[in-house]
Amino acid sequence: MYRYRLDIEYDGSAYAGWQRQTGHHTIQAAIEQAVLAFSGDDGALRGAGRTDAGVHATGQVAHIDLTREWKADKVRDAINAHLRLSGERISIIAALAVDAGFDARFSAKARHYIYRILNRRSPPALDAGKVWWVPKMLDAEAMHEAAQPLLGKHDFTTFRSTQCQANSPLRTLDRLDVIRTGEAIEVHASARAFLHNQVRSMVGSLKRVGEGGWPVDGVKAALDARDRAACAGIAPPEGLYLVHVDY
Amino acid sequence: MYRYRLDIEYDGSAYAGWQRQTGHHTIQAAIEQAVLAFSGDDGALRGAGRTDAGVHATGQVAHIDLTREWKADKVRDAINAHLRLSGERISIIAALAVDAGFDARFSAKARHYIYRILNRRSPPALDAGKVWWVPKMLDAEAMHEAAQPLLGKHDFTTFRSTQCQANSPLRTLDRLDVIRTGEAIEVHASARAFLHNQVRSMVGSLKRVGEGGWPVDGVKAALDARDRAACAGIAPPEGLYLVHVDY
Repeated sequence: MYRYRLDIEYDGSAYAGWQRQTGHHTIQAAIEQAVLAFSGDDGALRGAGRTDAGVHATGQVAHIDLTREWKADKVRDAINAHLRLSGERISIIAALAVDAGFDARFSAKARHYIYRILNRRSPPALDAGKVWWVPKMLDAEAMHEAAQPLLGKHDFTTFRSTQCQANSPLRTLDRLDVIRTGEAIEVHASARAFLHNQVRSMVGSLKRVGEGGWPVDGVKAALDARDRAACAGIAPPEGLYLVHVDY
Repeated sequence: MYRYRLDIEYDGSAYAGWQRQTGHHTIQAAIEQAVLAFSGDDGALRGAGRTDAGVHATGQVAHIDLTREWKADKVRDAINAHLRLSGERISIIAALAVDAGFDARFSAKARHYIYRILNRRSPPALDAGKVWWVPKMLDAEAMHEAAQPLLGKHDFTTFRSTQCQANSPLRTLDRLDVIRTGEAIEVHASARAFLHNQVRSMVGSLKRVGEGGWPVDGVKAALDARDRAACAGIAPPEGLYLVHVDY
């Protein structure tokens, strides 16, 4: 078998998430269908991050095994051609031949997400479905300050979906920066791995600080509670982007 | 009557252009409908630029006369509420009370457009319908150089739609910059006024230079021909944005 790494961009608003599910239109299934159409291979695609419904990616990474050896650019162009024929909102940015030791999920050293908030009175027109629209003015500096105690290794039970299937609630957060540029607020989050809904749960709680509903130390208090009920809320999927995976 | 200036953002891909046309869904008609729903006034909205089908705006400007005096923020929020109810992809960024001497079309001192090209092998997923996808590598520096002879006052017959209703083909172009940032190429065009399809016709010809099909002085030669047939082609509407109007 010949293994290929795929770097993938998608508009998550058209999909029921990354992972294949019977009866649902998912990103994994759409790409597997395109791979089958060009190569005849029906193997499974394995992704670095199982993004939820509505979550976008500019730098998802996956791998697939093919029975025949192809030029990597041919793999990229052929999958893209079939995705376009099917009207998918998915694009293979790059394909690369890799050895069998590469695993998109288990070899990943860090995952980088950006959460985009549009903070203005008027709703988005061009970026509808691509940002979280928050009309109330947010204090991004307070949000950034509130985020810093989450860095390092912690029990993130508060910021974890009750559906999360990870064995342990312990994770090590390497970056959680809140950056305002005019009406746009971006939250940059990096870690080796995240729990299910972790980024959206952290952003939902930071937003509570930004609007003045919690003091700056409220996020640290919520973390220390190790109780899902202490989370201020979960930010909607449309603001979240998987932007990069390090190997 | 009380006159209000509206600053408007829209996703042009959902519309048959700015201008009201019987039997077509247009931006002007959608906003007029929202104004009628909140105020009972059925006056005409006048815009600074009559953008074509598929063309976007982040800074279109229009004015409307209302029989009752409202707080400007109330005008903005009420129109936005009705636009959202109707599922429109239009947002009023700002409303401002202005005197009767202000005319969004005739008072405009300059119009600024940006044309966005995505120059990479892979098609856009997140920005589908928001950029012109050009897979062949373009020489943006050559495009910029080719653009400069168009600055100043010229007969732009070559770069004007045969449908253009302006009396004169003479226009004064103040800016035509081609800027590459990674895979993105932006063409920034500014003038007091443009002819119909002028920006898209200039971009279509600059792209011909960028891909090596014309020499750098080919755009100047096309201008000098004063012949629509000398235009290399018209860039598609989805890359074009009306970004700002000066008064």
